[in-house]
Amino acid sequence: MTRQEVFNFSAGPSVMPESALLSAQKDLLSYGSTGVSVMEMSHRTPMFEEIFNGTKQKLRDILGIPDNYEILLIQGGATLQFASIPMNLIEDGFADYAITGNFSKRAANEARKYGEVRLACDTTETGHDRIPTQSELKISEGAKYFYYCSNNTAFGTEWNYVPETKSPIVCDMSSDILSRPVDVSKYGLIYAGAQKNMAPAGLTVVIIDKALAGKHLPITPEVMEYDTLIRTDSLLNTPPCWCIYMLGLVLDWVKTQGGVEGMEVLKREKSKKVYDLLDNSKFYIPHALASARSDMNITFRTPSEELDAEFVKDAAAKGLINLKGHKVAGGIRASLYNAMPMEGVDRLVSFMKEFEAKHV
Amino acid sequence: MTRQEVFNFSAGPSVMPESALLSAQKDLLSYGSTGVSVMEMSHRTPMFEEIFNGTKQKLRDILGIPDNYEILLIQGGATLQFASIPMNLIEDGFADYAITGNFSKRAANEARKYGEVRLACDTTETGHDRIPTQSELKISEGAKYFYYCSNNTAFGTEWNYVPETKSPIVCDMSSDILSRPVDVSKYGLIYAGAQKNMAPAGLTVVIIDKALAGKHLPITPEVMEYDTLIRTDSLLNTPPCWCIYMLGLVLDWVKTQGGVEGMEVLKREKSKKVYDLLDNSKFYIPHALASARSDMNITFRTPSEELDAEFVKDAAAKGLINLKGHKVAGGIRASLYNAMPMEGVDRLVSFMKEFEAKHV
Repeated sequence: MTRQEVFNFSAGPSVMPESALLSAQKDLLSYGSTGVSVMEMSHRTPMFEEIFNGTKQKLRDILGIPDNYEILLIQGGATLQFASIPMNLIEDGFADYAITGNFSKRAANEARKYGEVRLACDTTETGHDRIPTQSELKISEGAKYFYYCSNNTAFGTEWNYVPETKSPIVCDMSSDILSRPVDVSKYGLIYAGAQKNMAPAGLTVVIIDKALAGKHLPITPEVMEYDTLIRTDSLLNTPPCWCIYMLGLVLDWVKTQGGVEGMEVLKREKSKKVYDLLDNSKFYIPHALASARSDMNITFRTPSEELDAEFVKDAAAKGLINLKGHKVAGGIRASLYNAMPMEGVDRLVSFMKEFEAKHV
Repeated sequence: MTRQEVFNFSAGPSVMPESALLSAQKDLLSYGSTGVSVMEMSHRTPMFEEIFNGTKQKLRDILGIPDNYEILLIQGGATLQFASIPMNLIEDGFADYAITGNFSKRAANEARKYGEVRLACDTTETGHDRIPTQSELKISEGAKYFYYCSNNTAFGTEWNYVPETKSPIVCDMSSDILSRPVDVSKYGLIYAGAQKNMAPAGLTVVIIDKALAGKHLPITPEVMEYDTLIRTDSLLNTPPCWCIYMLGLVLDWVKTQGGVEGMEVLKREKSKKVYDLLDNSKFYIPHALASARSDMNITFRTPSEELDAEFVKDAAAKGLINLKGHKVAGGIRASLYNAMPMEGVDRLVSFMKEFEAKHV
């Protein structure tokens, strides 16, 4: 199939803005007048520093990141941060973890290697179909931090409020960063794997209140120490240069779409089309409670596993690809990240109607 | 400048084969008939699995990696491996470290966080200008492993033999992997950051004898556990997909050049041109002893720091870029990795002659 015929609903790595890909393609063998590909640039040269600093500044502008926060552009993925966070922040104390999906659960399990974890909530019993209200959260006195994951990619739920806590908030925004405005000053640390709304896989963005750094456990690998990464401006070792460059191109596109405010309007319009269909269907069964629905990852089922599989297969034949649910959740999942064009959503909705008509 | 006018002597990230870049450019918006960019592919789809498994198989074929070794394609860089290696292999014991440059020194310092380090050698006093002979190495009885770095990027030395040890050998081959045949069966673990001879920055290749895995310390982050990475085929979390794809394209090119045997012939021819000039010059001062010279990174000086700087600047004006020495070594460094064309070496040699003639 050609690019025009395919709409990629993958939960990550995911669809990227075509303008960013076209820029990358144009400059692939020579970035501007440098005569070298970005993939060939030493990270310690002025030509790459310009890209690196430019990307950081664009992110700072678009998310409104205050000066007392550092932006780290590093390797390792969110999974490495599951360990970096307690290694750097838990000291000899304990932390509150809100478990609302499999990634926050894995983060909590990892943290137990380095300190005490207290559960602020755990939605496992209801299949992670909900987000607790503020009053349902157990907030500890004296916790080193409060951890949550703002959007649960696998189960399709999203926090629609920032919890009030008694300790710095650490938030995994891997799957909804750049999709809406965020008041960064409410957080101690925000991090995200880039491969959903930001860049190709291989880059992790950490936005950290500098005051939190400097208390890592002695067994922390040097390249995971937040204070070292802040001191070296993420250049203790070679960063994922290509992904950083691509993030810059994606941020240029986000800006042309009206920034995160524009992305928020767009994502609500896109997800509403699918949720309206789900709400008016006697065939499809949405997974997340209405109060906790994610705009990024919409999870639902048909009446049977066989029909789920048929749905995924038939959709793919029409160019609507990667609609299979996460292995821990099953069913169907449509990821509507920033770069998913409205046409893709419209085609999905049409297909869902056809499929329903054929099977009821 | 255009790509044709520039020769990039960077120590890493470094020049890549033009054929690989052209392939990447051609398929950037749609890989084959998939309709999606490799940067947009979920790592859990057949289309990416084909790339992933293909890259692994090409590496296995080209390096002749036996079946009892696993190939890991992961994030984090060599610097993260400085910690991963002791975390996974040192248990409650000790390890031998051969310090012949700044990267092996940093690896040893990192290992001290997790166990006891014994020095097999340390060439710090002579400015890392040499590689010890076998008889100069202090080999411990009962060490969990013996660690060395086969090519010292900063100081321009290279081991021309595989040490005989009493424990599994762990080798950092970041800057000379794929430049010559290697008998993998002599090693317990080989690893390399990809950004020199393999792929863009952001990928680390680990080749591990599977029998060594499974003894990690309890404080090891899950994504650094070799046994977990083996079990999940490097897909515990999202791998650096684009870099893995690029590695596959680079390996295709290596194959057309006669594999690692072909690369070895070529690298000797390239480095000989520069070393012959250095040996016949009364102006340039080579850093490494003749017995320890690296074919990958050639380090030398002019009679003064001022002239070193002038050399680097004048060369850059002629399109010979990134010749400045590493910050810990100073002077001049010409990195002649696999993808440096012979024309680049010839131009460098001509420039060196001109520069010498102008200043003696």
